[in-house]
Amino acid sequence: MSVYLHDIPLDEARARIESALAEAGLGGILGEEEIPLDEAALGRVLARPVWARLSSPHYNAAAMDGFAVRSADTDGASPVAPVRMELGKRCAYVDTGDPLPDWADAVVPIEETEPEHPGEDGRRDPRRPEAITIRLAFPPWKNVRPMGEDMVATELVLPDGHVLRPFDLGACAGSGQDRLTVARRPVVAILPTGSELRPVGVPVGAGDIIEYNSIVLAAQIAEWGGAPLRFPITADERPAIEAAVAAAAAEADLVLLLSGSSAGAEDFSAEVVAALGRLLLHGVAVRPGHPVIFGMVRAAEREVPIIGVPGYPVSAALTGEIFIEPILARWLGRRPYEPPEVEVELSRKITSPLGDDDYVRVVIGRVGGRTLAAPISRGAGVISSLVRADGIIVVPRGTQGLSAGEPARARLYRTLEELDRTILATGSHDVALDLAAQHLAGAGRRLVSANAGSLGGLLALRRGEAHLAGSHLIDPETGEYNLSYVRTYLPETPVVVVTFVGRDQGLLVAPGNPKGLAGLDDLAGGVIVFVNRQRGAGTRVLFDHELGKTGIAAEDVAGYEREEYTHLAVAAAVASGRADCGLGIPAAARAVGLDFIPLFQERYDLVIPKAHYNSDLIAPLLALLQAPDFRTAVSGLPGYDTRSMGTVVAEMG
Amino acid sequence: MSVYLHDIPLDEARARIESALAEAGLGGILGEEEIPLDEAALGRVLARPVWARLSSPHYNAAAMDGFAVRSADTDGASPVAPVRMELGKRCAYVDTGDPLPDWADAVVPIEETEPEHPGEDGRRDPRRPEAITIRLAFPPWKNVRPMGEDMVATELVLPDGHVLRPFDLGACAGSGQDRLTVARRPVVAILPTGSELRPVGVPVGAGDIIEYNSIVLAAQIAEWGGAPLRFPITADERPAIEAAVAAAAAEADLVLLLSGSSAGAEDFSAEVVAALGRLLLHGVAVRPGHPVIFGMVRAAEREVPIIGVPGYPVSAALTGEIFIEPILARWLGRRPYEPPEVEVELSRKITSPLGDDDYVRVVIGRVGGRTLAAPISRGAGVISSLVRADGIIVVPRGTQGLSAGEPARARLYRTLEELDRTILATGSHDVALDLAAQHLAGAGRRLVSANAGSLGGLLALRRGEAHLAGSHLIDPETGEYNLSYVRTYLPETPVVVVTFVGRDQGLLVAPGNPKGLAGLDDLAGGVIVFVNRQRGAGTRVLFDHELGKTGIAAEDVAGYEREEYTHLAVAAAVASGRADCGLGIPAAARAVGLDFIPLFQERYDLVIPKAHYNSDLIAPLLALLQAPDFRTAVSGLPGYDTRSMGTVVAEMG
Repeated sequence: MSVYLHDIPLDEARARIESALAEAGLGGILGEEEIPLDEAALGRVLARPVWARLSSPHYNAAAMDGFAVRSADTDGASPVAPVRMELGKRCAYVDTGDPLPDWADAVVPIEETEPEHPGEDGRRDPRRPEAITIRLAFPPWKNVRPMGEDMVATELVLPDGHVLRPFDLGACAGSGQDRLTVARRPVVAILPTGSELRPVGVPVGAGDIIEYNSIVLAAQIAEWGGAPLRFPITADERPAIEAAVAAAAAEADLVLLLSGSSAGAEDFSAEVVAALGRLLLHGVAVRPGHPVIFGMVRAAEREVPIIGVPGYPVSAALTGEIFIEPILARWLGRRPYEPPEVEVELSRKITSPLGDDDYVRVVIGRVGGRTLAAPISRGAGVISSLVRADGIIVVPRGTQGLSAGEPARARLYRTLEELDRTILATGSHDVALDLAAQHLAGAGRRLVSANAGSLGGLLALRRGEAHLAGSHLIDPETGEYNLSYVRTYLPETPVVVVTFVGRDQGLLVAPGNPKGLAGLDDLAGGVIVFVNRQRGAGTRVLFDHELGKTGIAAEDVAGYEREEYTHLAVAAAVASGRADCGLGIPAAARAVGLDFIPLFQERYDLVIPKAHYNSDLIAPLLALLQAPDFRTAVSGLPGYDTRSMGTVVAEMG
Repeated sequence: MSVYLHDIPLDEARARIESALAEAGLGGILGEEEIPLDEAALGRVLARPVWARLSSPHYNAAAMDGFAVRSADTDGASPVAPVRMELGKRCAYVDTGDPLPDWADAVVPIEETEPEHPGEDGRRDPRRPEAITIRLAFPPWKNVRPMGEDMVATELVLPDGHVLRPFDLGACAGSGQDRLTVARRPVVAILPTGSELRPVGVPVGAGDIIEYNSIVLAAQIAEWGGAPLRFPITADERPAIEAAVAAAAAEADLVLLLSGSSAGAEDFSAEVVAALGRLLLHGVAVRPGHPVIFGMVRAAEREVPIIGVPGYPVSAALTGEIFIEPILARWLGRRPYEPPEVEVELSRKITSPLGDDDYVRVVIGRVGGRTLAAPISRGAGVISSLVRADGIIVVPRGTQGLSAGEPARARLYRTLEELDRTILATGSHDVALDLAAQHLAGAGRRLVSANAGSLGGLLALRRGEAHLAGSHLIDPETGEYNLSYVRTYLPETPVVVVTFVGRDQGLLVAPGNPKGLAGLDDLAGGVIVFVNRQRGAGTRVLFDHELGKTGIAAEDVAGYEREEYTHLAVAAAVASGRADCGLGIPAAARAVGLDFIPLFQERYDLVIPKAHYNSDLIAPLLALLQAPDFRTAVSGLPGYDTRSMGTVVAEMG
């Protein structure tokens, strides 16, 4: 077992990597290659500046179809004093782009001439009149593109380090180049290791992990201009890993050794790097991702840098962004990627470890002129958090987090334009909202749901942090849905309450209902293990309300204190055997192959502040509630009733 | 000759194209294909939503290396009340990622245990102690990644229309997918036509045009997710063009017919489209680019859309952005590209034709907290204007332009971060500044020069529109450079004046000096044609100053009134024979192969407002002035003297 890794600060780690690369002669561009100037050069990085070989245009060119003239010959021409010119030595037809005759210094556009033709035959060639008459004077160089108007020979067209865009290729070609000298693409070998890993497409059992970090890293490397080289999975055996690293190093400019970079029993990466070369770094104080390794391994006459990439997928992807991208930028001679940034206001506090640079994924919403960021799952294993993330806030080491309401800078994964057409929904989670998100994509809206429970959603609306909230809160006294809660929690926010769906609620139980459950009465006695929803969730209020009717005390329900935040999480708890049942909706049961015992029906409304209700942003959602194909799609979900969809229940405030 | 084209408004043109496509069944995605889930899927567009096939993790997994336990067995454990557990049925070693045994519901991390080993042999396997002692209680599910923590089976992972990013591939793989259904890439045939066109790499004579629009469009199409198919150049003969269009249509989803879309004598595009199918649009009121054609041509059983693309390169590239990208977006099922936008303040007025949507290329500078945009060359033939552009301002039809100082929205070609590290230089143009731009790129600074002449530069500084100005203005009374002008024109702006270079000024003449020119005296008599610089240019002030000494009147100099804005433009005028000579610097003469007759030496200074002089932005430039390798490079330019480079001449105000 290797020694425990020792985290060093990110800045120091980067400096150590940079100086090791510089020492090995790998501090700059790896090499250059000459390529033909065509569309395949798109995205390549110039290794040498491009200087204009020719001027563009490389001659004085007619800028219009018309007649080349000497401007002096048009002096004094006017509507009352027309000038007539015979075609010949001092007047000649030119098409746009034609070279101007030596004697000419202006072009009279064809539509500003009155041509005289030799005869009145049907098809008259405008290029061959006998003479023209003009009624306007033309100054020198009028309607002429002078030589060098665009580029002058020897002028700098593009500097080295420039990443080629489509029209850059045009400018290079127009300046007389036909080949370009670009930076060679760095070859990056990607070596997944781990006996528990299975390639994509191979069936997995418990304990097996689908290996996709190599795909994510390969795609990142391709996106950043490198050439990825994926190797097959190597089992957790030190000799096999050593052999694979040696083989990869022989072919690559950089080796990525995936997983095994921590200090567990089967984490061989550090030992392998030390055995094949020099271990220069083991552990960086960055979260997620701290067990990063850097070293140099010998390959024939060369030393090849190697990075041990942590196995958790979020750590692996961020290791790409934090460590690998800057190396590729250096080797390609371009600027490191600069993500666009935006000033945000935190809607929830972030707690960070004092000693780490903490990369916090956030969702960002633009609500009523504010740009709000909320942290999402911190788990390094939750790749979907990167998919959902709108950006990253880096909480620097030396601070223990950021307070709610504090301003911060977020690096964006999406454009602000994309965020501007994002509807931020909060409150209770509902599967039909996912379906709405699907349908709204076609109408140019992103619908993003933050699951806060029904009550949490109303509170978020009060704080102005969302465009709408999904709510299914029953009033235990009146049996009425939502309205009394809106009155209590949103007294000062005018809102419209619109019904989304009617939903069945019932018990989610293991397939075949092995415990023979029939209703809440079965929870008496503490034998049956229940999994609960969090306080404030509509399903929790319903459960407490209905449990009260049975006379069973909450403390007598086993598992009452274990709270999950979504229907699907409750379903997963039952499916995994952690609980015998939970209260939820049938769609969640179906999602994980559970049985469903319907008990109640409830109304799920959308609570929309009036400030947003009439906005362009929300309009496609309101239209969707009236769309027959959407209602059909929702009706196809088990336990959903769409008869009241789109009904305005109340306008309040 | 075809009828004159008739421009219709852009919105109407787009609507006409959309309805024609919809009618032909081409209003949506063209088709889908299933591809393996690997890095090659990067950038592809999902044709179907991805739903999770498996939960992730698909079992309850240990989140730490340590010991799986029942949390209840740890109840009450504390530093003073340790709990000892023997390994066996209720305590088992697990590595991170291992499935949790059925009976366990928590993991005790290895570093929080005190292991007992059977013997005290050297190498102790941490996985095989006899027992462990813990001094802390572990609640249920502590250090466990519950099944579905990341994604729950049947959950929506990604909607259709989503463009796949690296970590999206990871999420899809983690949710049990091994193939993805993506939109088929639309095949776009690109057909350059024109007898004057020469492919890149073929030598050109007067009247020949290097054909690169096809490369720019092919690169755009590749960038936007299509598959470009470039055809060879077809001469301006209608039968040949018809045959080429028919061949291209047979292979493609869209045909681009390049050039010939106007109404000149050899513009056959409209006729060809009409002959092979239906001409639906000829002319759009958009500038640059108005002679756009749209139609449908028959190819076997299909109708294939065809776009006639104007021949001027800026028009062609913008036709790509305005018309072709939205079609590809539709066919791929993704959102059209949304360029990031920024609010800018115009530093110069823009005049636009009332009837057109005018796409104005601008440079954007961030100076002293303001984001300033200035229009650059309006010529549709000037591809370098797109290379230089930081963005585009669209002046909508119905307005005749925008005033200086007016706010406007610009679509960005660069990130704001890139603009933030841009040094905006104005004033007199100098070739050594291009060299400085080259060197500064390595230091993370873009140096962008707007050529306004020396005086124009000082006035721009007064308006706060640039970070520095290059100036070589001689005071005719004292012979002193720059300082009196700074006193006069920048009385309220504290500045530092730093010498950049000493430069030779002299006559640029044709190779071999055929007119035998020796000095300004030769301009007497109006025989020799001179080309002048614009008023306010340092070279112009010098010329007027020195001409005064000769006693020749300005009105006696032929060409005195013809003004060019840069040294290189003066050189180009001489090289093209438009003038016999001009006053300028030797680097400009060398650029276009002219001879140079040195006459004077002058001092070229950088005038830098103190507000910027001490900024991080400018620091690398000041450092560069002291760098020996940069001085060597500048000294290599003919007629440059770097002995005073970096000398602070004056601090003023």
